Amino acid sequence: MTRLALNQITTKHWSLPEAVQGCVDAGIPAIGLWRDKVAETGLATAAKLVRDAGLSVSSLCRGGFLTAVGAEGRQTALAENLRALEEAAELGTDTLVMVVGGLAEGSRDLVGARARVAELLSELALHAGDFGVRLAIEPLHPMFCADRAVVSTLGQALDLAEQFPVEQVGVVVDSYHVWWDPELARQIARAGDRIASYQVCDWTLPLPADALLGRGHVGDGHIDFRTLTDQVAAAGYTGWIEVEIFNETVWGTPGAQTLRTMIERHHAHVETP
Amino acid sequence: MTRLALNQITTKHWSLPEAVQGCVDAGIPAIGLWRDKVAETGLATAAKLVRDAGLSVSSLCRGGFLTAVGAEGRQTALAENLRALEEAAELGTDTLVMVVGGLAEGSRDLVGARARVAELLSELALHAGDFGVRLAIEPLHPMFCADRAVVSTLGQALDLAEQFPVEQVGVVVDSYHVWWDPELARQIARAGDRIASYQVCDWTLPLPADALLGRGHVGDGHIDFRTLTDQVAAAGYTGWIEVEIFNETVWGTPGAQTLRTMIERHHAHVETP
Repeated sequence: MTRLALNQITTKHWSLPEAVQGCVDAGIPAIGLWRDKVAETGLATAAKLVRDAGLSVSSLCRGGFLTAVGAEGRQTALAENLRALEEAAELGTDTLVMVVGGLAEGSRDLVGARARVAELLSELALHAGDFGVRLAIEPLHPMFCADRAVVSTLGQALDLAEQFPVEQVGVVVDSYHVWWDPELARQIARAGDRIASYQVCDWTLPLPADALLGRGHVGDGHIDFRTLTDQVAAAGYTGWIEVEIFNETVWGTPGAQTLRTMIERHHAHVETP
Repeated sequence: MTRLALNQITTKHWSLPEAVQGCVDAGIPAIGLWRDKVAETGLATAAKLVRDAGLSVSSLCRGGFLTAVGAEGRQTALAENLRALEEAAELGTDTLVMVVGGLAEGSRDLVGARARVAELLSELALHAGDFGVRLAIEPLHPMFCADRAVVSTLGQALDLAEQFPVEQVGVVVDSYHVWWDPELARQIARAGDRIASYQVCDWTLPLPADALLGRGHVGDGHIDFRTLTDQVAAAGYTGWIEVEIFNETVWGTPGAQTLRTMIERHHAHVETP
């Protein structure tokens, strides 16, 4: 369990103080924070709470949304991501998860949207370095390409990341988004020390009405976590393994019970204690 | 409109004779048939109907489902695909669309499932050649990887197809399944004369409760058909452009109206008349 982290979206109905206390009570040593929850509590208070509890902050979710068209959209995105970098630094994490954004409203120009992501990253990368925080590009499952992230594969995320120093831009390996990829083993090996975060949850069927919310506890679905975890380890990743689940049923479950299930599944499918 | 074809799933509630008559009435010169509809009408009758109507058969849907484990599952799959090849030949089409199948029940062995697809293809390819029919491997959107097709990208389909002579094994380019792929332009160029079928429908959001049924008429969603069609043409493909839509609303619309919409959208977004 020493590498297990709670991504706080998994206990969506817990406030930040509740999630921190939940981790302490369950013996989970790290937490991935969300900016909206941090804002609710207040940045300085949140940072102090986590620090005083002795928890590590595995990541901050999230920056990104870099595909807006035009100077104004671009400025807004830059400003927002600079704020996120600053928050990450104050919270004591070196990882800002980046969901890059989907097609611009009414646009079918996927190539253009992808180009804008690369441009904005090149504006942000140096700042990230200054803050000591790494932009962790998260490829999202291709079913989210139109509306959420035009970066759809680990290979594509690495093509972007490799344009920058390794301490400025990395990638997220999230089981749910990448498990299907026939190139996965090769791309994880290629990723090496670009892997800034390893997130886990399972692919379960049927997809729910809101396709965002179909993720299951590790072990409930179709992903071979043993093999995936071995590949990520072989690439040299020794960081946190964050459980990030979007699922109405999980969200409706008492947080302490969710954490018990997480720990159980982590031992059964991911890391043997 | 000379290259437009109706894939008969688009008019799911039409029988085969109705779909044939619908194409004739609308001036659509080709039809992609489904095996269940052919069986309803009877193979010989269906073949005669289509021939007498002067229509071409753009493809037969579908063979595949090659991922079963064990000798029995393998024999069943072989026998079923041989029947499908025979039917395709009798119907006068040179293209059997292959949906390769998902993970075996309860299995998380994606690598193994993909290996079984390759093995069974090598059993089927020579037979396909004998029938003068090409096995057209269809990569399905990654959201169908677990339950429907472990071939998820055009690149992966080509890696399989290229192990066999071009007249035995080809690939399907279906806009819905491949539009998001950052490798798409490169893989279409690579595909060249391996492209056995070009199918179109649009990516629309939100995904419906049954994710299979989320496809829209060309022009209703996020796909840039002009660019995609240009890429397919540049690869050398001059065959049919089949409209294949799974969508309850489209299915609830009178067939003749659906065909009018298809023709309109084809002219507006795919081929200028």
